[in-house]
Amino acid sequence: MTDIAFSHLAIVVDDLQSALQFWRDSLGLSQAGEIERVAAEEVDAAFMTLGDAKIELIEPTTADSGIAKFLAKRGPGIHHLCLEVPDLDAKLEDLSARGYQLINETPRERGGRRYAFIHPKSSGGVLLELYERN
Amino acid sequence: MTDIAFSHLAIVVDDLQSALQFWRDSLGLSQAGEIERVAAEEVDAAFMTLGDAKIELIEPTTADSGIAKFLAKRGPGIHHLCLEVPDLDAKLEDLSARGYQLINETPRERGGRRYAFIHPKSSGGVLLELYERN
Repeated sequence: MTDIAFSHLAIVVDDLQSALQFWRDSLGLSQAGEIERVAAEEVDAAFMTLGDAKIELIEPTTADSGIAKFLAKRGPGIHHLCLEVPDLDAKLEDLSARGYQLINETPRERGGRRYAFIHPKSSGGVLLELYERN
Repeated sequence: MTDIAFSHLAIVVDDLQSALQFWRDSLGLSQAGEIERVAAEEVDAAFMTLGDAKIELIEPTTADSGIAKFLAKRGPGIHHLCLEVPDLDAKLEDLSARGYQLINETPRERGGRRYAFIHPKSSGGVLLELYERN
């Protein structure tokens, strides 16, 4: 058994209300909490919960964030996958030693949550975020 | 609470062995079963399990399948998200009545599993597969 958990799949949308109309009102997912403004990421976010996993819908609130640029360039769609590991520093050190490329060599922190991104070059074209289990 | 479950996230890879080296051997996910040849889809597939959710790594085995063309055009990365619903016919009928576009108007079946794809135009750029709960 792995000690890694599925945290969330983040989907960039150009309009959170019509995205909610699809994923929540029409498909039938459950929204957890209200829409949250995440100032640091310059997005509004809504979380849908499905058992252990979450789907996060994110809409850029400014035009020049990384997320806004992704949306402008590639259109709406899946942005990143986030998995949760027990010891983030050890995992990053190990991946780095194996020659995989990290976007964040040392973990960043937001709202008490430690996280780091792995470069899509290393994870087969997938932008992979790792959370440290709280 | 929603009655929809997270089934799997499918990632197209150009080489299953090096993908397994990353996701399983380096990152530490658990592989469920052996690599499976899915003749109908013209892919080899490996499943990683994380609690209720699965990550499916798929490598095309021919050059002209839909998956092979996706890989050739867009490179490796996330291919589709699959969620599991209790009543697939009812869900498709309801989505269709709401004006959403389906790739499969009526469910297809493979190995006793009924499934249908929703068009990315309707699901905000995400290729969405729905499984019927068995």
